[in-house]
Amino acid sequence: MTTNEKALLLHKEWNGKLEVISKAKVKTREDLALAYTPGVAEPCKAIAKDPETAYQYTIKSNTVAVVSDGSAVLGLGNIGPLAAMPVMEGKAVLFKEFGGINAVPICLDTQDTEEIIKTVVNIAPAFGGINLEDISAPRCFEIEERLKELLSIPVFHDDQHGTAIVVLSGIINALKVTGRKKEECKVVVNGAGSAGIAIAKLLLTYGFVHVTLCDRIGILAKGMEGLNWMQEKMMELTNLEGRHGSLADAMRGADIFVGVSAPGIVTEDMVASMNSDSILFAMANPVPEIMPDLAKAAGARVVGTGRSDFPNQVNNVVVFPGIFKGALEGRATAITEEMKLAAATAIADLVAPSELNENNILPEAFDPRVADVVSRAVKEHIRQS
Amino acid sequence: MTTNEKALLLHKEWNGKLEVISKAKVKTREDLALAYTPGVAEPCKAIAKDPETAYQYTIKSNTVAVVSDGSAVLGLGNIGPLAAMPVMEGKAVLFKEFGGINAVPICLDTQDTEEIIKTVVNIAPAFGGINLEDISAPRCFEIEERLKELLSIPVFHDDQHGTAIVVLSGIINALKVTGRKKEECKVVVNGAGSAGIAIAKLLLTYGFVHVTLCDRIGILAKGMEGLNWMQEKMMELTNLEGRHGSLADAMRGADIFVGVSAPGIVTEDMVASMNSDSILFAMANPVPEIMPDLAKAAGARVVGTGRSDFPNQVNNVVVFPGIFKGALEGRATAITEEMKLAAATAIADLVAPSELNENNILPEAFDPRVADVVSRAVKEHIRQS
Repeated sequence: MTTNEKALLLHKEWNGKLEVISKAKVKTREDLALAYTPGVAEPCKAIAKDPETAYQYTIKSNTVAVVSDGSAVLGLGNIGPLAAMPVMEGKAVLFKEFGGINAVPICLDTQDTEEIIKTVVNIAPAFGGINLEDISAPRCFEIEERLKELLSIPVFHDDQHGTAIVVLSGIINALKVTGRKKEECKVVVNGAGSAGIAIAKLLLTYGFVHVTLCDRIGILAKGMEGLNWMQEKMMELTNLEGRHGSLADAMRGADIFVGVSAPGIVTEDMVASMNSDSILFAMANPVPEIMPDLAKAAGARVVGTGRSDFPNQVNNVVVFPGIFKGALEGRATAITEEMKLAAATAIADLVAPSELNENNILPEAFDPRVADVVSRAVKEHIRQS
Repeated sequence: MTTNEKALLLHKEWNGKLEVISKAKVKTREDLALAYTPGVAEPCKAIAKDPETAYQYTIKSNTVAVVSDGSAVLGLGNIGPLAAMPVMEGKAVLFKEFGGINAVPICLDTQDTEEIIKTVVNIAPAFGGINLEDISAPRCFEIEERLKELLSIPVFHDDQHGTAIVVLSGIINALKVTGRKKEECKVVVNGAGSAGIAIAKLLLTYGFVHVTLCDRIGILAKGMEGLNWMQEKMMELTNLEGRHGSLADAMRGADIFVGVSAPGIVTEDMVASMNSDSILFAMANPVPEIMPDLAKAAGARVVGTGRSDFPNQVNNVVVFPGIFKGALEGRATAITEEMKLAAATAIADLVAPSELNENNILPEAFDPRVADVVSRAVKEHIRQS
């Protein structure tokens, strides 16, 4: 049986991968009087008096909504909210298994930006955080920004920031392996959607200076037609020389390539045209932009992919459970850039100097230390802010 | 320690009465590939092709949203969504413990009818049913009606129908005990809010003919000022003689009194003015409209209250878990009047003729048979419709 066949069979067996269980057992009249009426009125009154106590008396303290409109699900595209459910349930599974966090899939029957924002604001009281998932660009940027303004609980679009953080972690270590300085590196990010733009932004925040965004049309440059508002905004920060050209032109003389794009679009020639000891993150899934062996043969030193069967898997499961764990435990009202950088550094530091090499720049997805380390790093930056 | 003190302490200890757990264990890379990417794409594709399969592959089949805007919580009034959380969690606990159903509290940061409707429609894909809770009248009527039109999953306002169904169950058995015929009974329902109106409606549907609604202003009659639209609508079906007067006037010569109103407002004189062997459901909580001993001394034969420390507790926990269990298992698209009547009859029939007497007209809340019996009755009416 293939993995796919087995997955379908298992999903039928599970009939939903989540279960909501009660911590309060209700076997007697007294139990009922404590967990429900009349006793339940007491925590209600306490919260009505002091809303902060909701974090003591309710699930808000440790519960996240995993919100999607089903518009950009995995590589499947706009399959809608119902068909997105297995992914959102899977995400909730990872929240629990890796971070100990309750997560509830909320799949929205609208793809209208304003309606999504209003709906999420309306359901926010029950939740301690909002994880946005698989919402297509550029709507995802506006939805996240507006929700951050409107809500005082953490809002985090994992496709953007989870990916950006783990990529930065990998790059931090790849710089060490190849003896580079961030300020001097030329970085090409291919794929100017949610993940690509978030990666470019976070690299700039971290201190990279030379970042070029590419997309199907090649290098993105200021004044080009067909850019969305977020891509236009990025033109103030990237490709400051205003170069035009193809992906191949962008890669010539570059140090780092980050692909969140399409299978096989990077050739060996392109890699060979990069600076020596180049760093490639080829994260198209399941087939990377270039296969690691080909990239290495063409001169790359460090190659990461989204796959677990190659070295250096770039997997945001090392990010979001710890980020939310830290944010919830520290009662953060938002996830800031400082928290993201702290998470990226903490993840990179999990690879001990003695273990760090070109085939080992990132901790394993199942490294049991990750969520706690990330959570601690995040919490320190709540206290400091 | 009082029950209230203990309840507060326990709620702090629980720190949220619910937990979302994973049925899929994720300990290995293979586990991850099956529960999440890449395997999860298979059920996604199956659902995109045939939306009905969401009931096979996701939690939709057995998950209900418990939706409130916090506008009419217990006897506490409009305490808002955050303070309503402990009640909604408690309701979810009962859904699980009594019906085996996953329930998720959704507390809404809006009390605007249109926004509530839109929000519930938007979040519906993840759920197999919507249980509305503690939403004030008359908005609750419009919200429920409109949601029933807009959604093809069961929508059920428990404060209305859960209460109405269990009251009808009790009345069915009280009629047997007192040897009455429904068509001949004069019924007074005091409290013309969500529960009172639903009770009046369901009694009429069941076959009662003479029903009078009262409220703080006394008997409600056609053409009176200050009625809301639902109360006006009820004037086409109740108090057909167009009587005016006080609650005392209404009760004179009545056979059945149903109170969902306020503590102690029924006097012994009022009970004495009813027909002999009268039936009273005095459900104000925690202090009934009249205490059972006083009512009996004044001539009542059957007295039910909301309390577990008196005979004949009227508790809708015997209703909603079974109703939803049946509706979900039978994949009902709505909860119809027939299903409600079937549930009420099934609950009444749980009291064996040999055990039926004036102090035993309803099954116990903890009767382990209830949810299955109600669920079966409900399912039969899905097949028949």
